[in-house]
Amino acid sequence: MNYFSSDFKLGILGGGQLGKMLLFDTRKFDIQTYILDPSDEAPCKIACDTFIKGDLMDFQTVYNFGKLVDVLTFEIELVNLEALIKLEEEGLKVYPSPKTLQLIQNKGVQKDFYTQHQIPTANYKRFKDIKSLILAILESQITLPFVWKCTEFGYDGNGVKVIRDITDLDNLANVECIAEEMIPFKNELAVIVCRSPSGEIKTYPVVEMEFHPEANQVEYVICPARIDTKVADKARAIALHVSEKFNHVGLLAVEMFQTEEDEIIVNEVAPRPHNSGHYSIEASFTSQFENHLRAILDLPLGNTDSKVAGIMVNLVGAEGHSGNVVYENIEKIMSWNGVTPHIYGKKQTRPFRKMGHVTIVNADIVEARRIAEDVKNTIRVISQK
Amino acid sequence: MNYFSSDFKLGILGGGQLGKMLLFDTRKFDIQTYILDPSDEAPCKIACDTFIKGDLMDFQTVYNFGKLVDVLTFEIELVNLEALIKLEEEGLKVYPSPKTLQLIQNKGVQKDFYTQHQIPTANYKRFKDIKSLILAILESQITLPFVWKCTEFGYDGNGVKVIRDITDLDNLANVECIAEEMIPFKNELAVIVCRSPSGEIKTYPVVEMEFHPEANQVEYVICPARIDTKVADKARAIALHVSEKFNHVGLLAVEMFQTEEDEIIVNEVAPRPHNSGHYSIEASFTSQFENHLRAILDLPLGNTDSKVAGIMVNLVGAEGHSGNVVYENIEKIMSWNGVTPHIYGKKQTRPFRKMGHVTIVNADIVEARRIAEDVKNTIRVISQK
Repeated sequence: MNYFSSDFKLGILGGGQLGKMLLFDTRKFDIQTYILDPSDEAPCKIACDTFIKGDLMDFQTVYNFGKLVDVLTFEIELVNLEALIKLEEEGLKVYPSPKTLQLIQNKGVQKDFYTQHQIPTANYKRFKDIKSLILAILESQITLPFVWKCTEFGYDGNGVKVIRDITDLDNLANVECIAEEMIPFKNELAVIVCRSPSGEIKTYPVVEMEFHPEANQVEYVICPARIDTKVADKARAIALHVSEKFNHVGLLAVEMFQTEEDEIIVNEVAPRPHNSGHYSIEASFTSQFENHLRAILDLPLGNTDSKVAGIMVNLVGAEGHSGNVVYENIEKIMSWNGVTPHIYGKKQTRPFRKMGHVTIVNADIVEARRIAEDVKNTIRVISQK
Repeated sequence: MNYFSSDFKLGILGGGQLGKMLLFDTRKFDIQTYILDPSDEAPCKIACDTFIKGDLMDFQTVYNFGKLVDVLTFEIELVNLEALIKLEEEGLKVYPSPKTLQLIQNKGVQKDFYTQHQIPTANYKRFKDIKSLILAILESQITLPFVWKCTEFGYDGNGVKVIRDITDLDNLANVECIAEEMIPFKNELAVIVCRSPSGEIKTYPVVEMEFHPEANQVEYVICPARIDTKVADKARAIALHVSEKFNHVGLLAVEMFQTEEDEIIVNEVAPRPHNSGHYSIEASFTSQFENHLRAILDLPLGNTDSKVAGIMVNLVGAEGHSGNVVYENIEKIMSWNGVTPHIYGKKQTRPFRKMGHVTIVNADIVEARRIAEDVKNTIRVISQK
């Protein structure tokens, strides 16, 4: 298949920042792209060849869109699965496959999949609604504390809550959910696996999510993770095992916990470019986006090794600020060595909205970490006065 | 000034591959862009915010375009200078300044400038047309062989010819020209200098253009140049000196010869991102395009050091092929370590047309050079059968 400067058309469901970063690589290779997104202000609206506005959860919209393209991928899991299944049945290449997506979209199904394939994961129980969950607590079938997760439509920490007391369940959506055992962990790790239809497979190095000691929020994604080689090897092996079982095409980001006993357990996966791989744009020989593109087009995968150490800091809207965005002190952080801001292009900020990220690269990871902390403490995403 | 996700508008004259690569960085920073180009098929047509079709040499077109934007730059020197001068007089920030461009657009003026500022360069004489040049030869004011260069509108080796015999002048355009002394040189080198309106200045490492031993064509741009440190220091110092004299804003690519006696003489300059800096996208901490953008917006300049060694191979249309382009064996070269093709997006190939380039990066420059040779011998830009 000739993809380069040809009539070939790649369709992407979703026009957010992940799609936007993927478009850097479709542009680099001059591959024609079609984007479907509900928003007129989607970050992907420019830089694609054709932008179509439409509902990603609507069967007919997604189906019709799929009919326009030669290969279909997505940058968000919340898309109409039935349309993808029908398109695949009709012969369209849909990567990742709807079969993979089906196992991932619902966290209950995803957890059952881990159990079924002897993939280490925290113990859990599935519930059809909050009422059944409360009943199980009252009947002592599950014990407090535990982690509540809604099974569908959660993202970026939405739909996840630590339940220490039964009243913590108040105001939660009355939807299908799981109750998961709380695992004390030393580190949250992630490994991105890349796989092509031909079966070529590569893993990125293990990255580490460093948490703020008080706020319990991820502050830095650090590559490589500052962990023992044995633990890193184990994490990479488990990620590969997960990847094989899903038999996915494209990227699979595998989030894991390193327990106090140095066991690795799988938290969850995402079948697409992932926040934990953004460092790769500057730090890796081949970015996660380029490798996703190579994979779904069945091109040879690129080298996943790093040129230098990379650290990523998310840029989220500051509390108390809503409106036209201003990146306070961005010029200051740009004066530091190896600092690159990525601005996703959302015109309006809101508290905690993901507005961009900053990558810090350096031959010396300790120096990168020092600069990353300065970046974190300096740039602020606020609204115009 | 707030450039990021704001109403600020950057205008770019020219919508070719240099502009296209610059747009990766305007997109990364979410800076609004306007592009003026005469072609409906300009590589920049998508990925800019607003594309305007128009003649770059027409005063009114360029002037009107300039009135739409807050800062104006160009990716090609062949633009209407009078319009830029008027726009600058009226207060528009035009970077590089028309004053700089004026000294560069005409190679005769450029050579006089070197002489005036004690910048080492090959001896030359200016002629208003071929007739005057022939007369000078006949009167023995200049001796054969020499290098003929037309002073304006030359590009990519067009408008340059080695004259060994007076009949070599047959069929040359009867335009203003210079006759330049032929300098036997060991290496052709280049240094890209970056300078902001505030006067911050940084140089990229010295790169080396490696020539095909028989065809006398540049085959590889190699960073860092495989030359003695003393020679590299001298080249960087001369490039800085040239930059100071031009007092430019943005990039200045300084092309130089290393003579048999290890002297450095300046060949010519280009006030914009340059073919000799394409390696920087993959190899440098900050690419030449990002640094051009930072410079013209008076943002702090990024680190110009390299993460790894980088080699660039140009992709030009193969002889005997015209029509819809096919990149033969591109999948093969993509399977090799650290190989990234850049496809500019021209749908039609012609013999020697610049269609793209390939970057090879590696921690080991010898290994990079080996892979680069394989790339050169493997990929072919041909037309569809």
